[in-house]
Amino acid sequence: MSSSSAAPAAKPPMRDALVAAAFRLFVERGYEQTTVDDIVALAGVGRRSFFRYFPSKEDVVFPDHERCLADMTAFLGTGGPEHEPVRRVCDAARLVLRMYAENPAFSVQRYRLTRQVPGLRAYELSVVWRYERALADYLRGRFAGRPDGTLRADVIAAAVVAAHNNALRSWLRSDGAGDPGTAVDHALGYVHRTYGRPADTAVAAARSGPAGSDERAGRSDEVVVLVSRRDAPLWRVVQELETALGRG
Amino acid sequence: MSSSSAAPAAKPPMRDALVAAAFRLFVERGYEQTTVDDIVALAGVGRRSFFRYFPSKEDVVFPDHERCLADMTAFLGTGGPEHEPVRRVCDAARLVLRMYAENPAFSVQRYRLTRQVPGLRAYELSVVWRYERALADYLRGRFAGRPDGTLRADVIAAAVVAAHNNALRSWLRSDGAGDPGTAVDHALGYVHRTYGRPADTAVAAARSGPAGSDERAGRSDEVVVLVSRRDAPLWRVVQELETALGRG
Repeated sequence: MSSSSAAPAAKPPMRDALVAAAFRLFVERGYEQTTVDDIVALAGVGRRSFFRYFPSKEDVVFPDHERCLADMTAFLGTGGPEHEPVRRVCDAARLVLRMYAENPAFSVQRYRLTRQVPGLRAYELSVVWRYERALADYLRGRFAGRPDGTLRADVIAAAVVAAHNNALRSWLRSDGAGDPGTAVDHALGYVHRTYGRPADTAVAAARSGPAGSDERAGRSDEVVVLVSRRDAPLWRVVQELETALGRG
Repeated sequence: MSSSSAAPAAKPPMRDALVAAAFRLFVERGYEQTTVDDIVALAGVGRRSFFRYFPSKEDVVFPDHERCLADMTAFLGTGGPEHEPVRRVCDAARLVLRMYAENPAFSVQRYRLTRQVPGLRAYELSVVWRYERALADYLRGRFAGRPDGTLRADVIAAAVVAAHNNALRSWLRSDGAGDPGTAVDHALGYVHRTYGRPADTAVAAARSGPAGSDERAGRSDEVVVLVSRRDAPLWRVVQELETALGRG
């Protein structure tokens, strides 16, 4: 977050020129074979200009992650109690997708580079870990004081990141063809259905029926029996169920 | 996996002596201030002996992960179709716990070191990522051809790793007090209840119960009675419900 907050809001052309020069050389010669001197020579600037924008050669490969991490943290920070927490972290993950989707050709190029260079792969893992921690920290706050709050926060954050990256990487492997938004929505929907509260339901309860009605039941307070008309709309039954299970 | 498979099955004392010397110096002087020369001098061996066992100074901090990754891969490889896949990956994750729990003092020392040295943190992230890929690859195999197979595999693998590490790190932060097995079992149980096949739990749909038990019911063949444990994951209950309502 620090480097981007120090930089001006509008991307300076010199920064863009350095990224463009770096990637041209990485693709032509290979990442390891390209030096910072090569990059600044092609961009027509001095070494100090490079290091003003990028702490190291690795950082020029991921020029937008700091900004995106800052955006994500800000987005989560402005969320209120009215935001369903799992939906909120799914929406936060979409900020990362937006960054990749803004420039498909660049994202695909970088993806290939990252697959080839172990150092870049390690760098990327540390970036992904920071996104995951941002999501987990937000959820830990929202789940504070609840049973298994930190466990649930960490697991849901990891599930969101894994789902997002599953869809993102499919898109990158397909050379950035089509709109990645649909696949990411589908993947995040899977996580939200698992852990989130459905936004569009309200509830009525059928709490704890007679335990004797089911021989598999242990004590009646561990069991929920829900009786429903077969032709009831599924959403209505799910509503009842949520309340009955105490998740409403 | 390569380095450990090349080493003899029984740990040679020299390897242990190098790890012990390294950690003594890391704790006394700090990781960055300790050189490989310092380590071999204290262990009373030559530099070549060090590099026979460890490709770099970082590797001596994590001397058992290669073996553990190999064990995990072997464990997953020997699983058959009779093994419920989510339980199998939970059991595989317990191999990592066992490695940490074998030597609590060492594990706690390393945990503190890893928190302090960014390079070691990055190394650890890459190890964790390899565990996660091993679990995900196994699940991808088990879910092959099913809808959202790779998505589910990646998400579940990430959830297992996050749950395991949530419990493991609590234990490490408590200086390795007590048995970490209970907390890890609890954390993995949370993931298994969410994603696993309900071998031992949870939900069963009872098609068409006695209509008299519910005054909302019309004729008895229009009614579905669903009995569920209160702690069953909502999505799992909905799945059963869909089947019971004939919408699955």
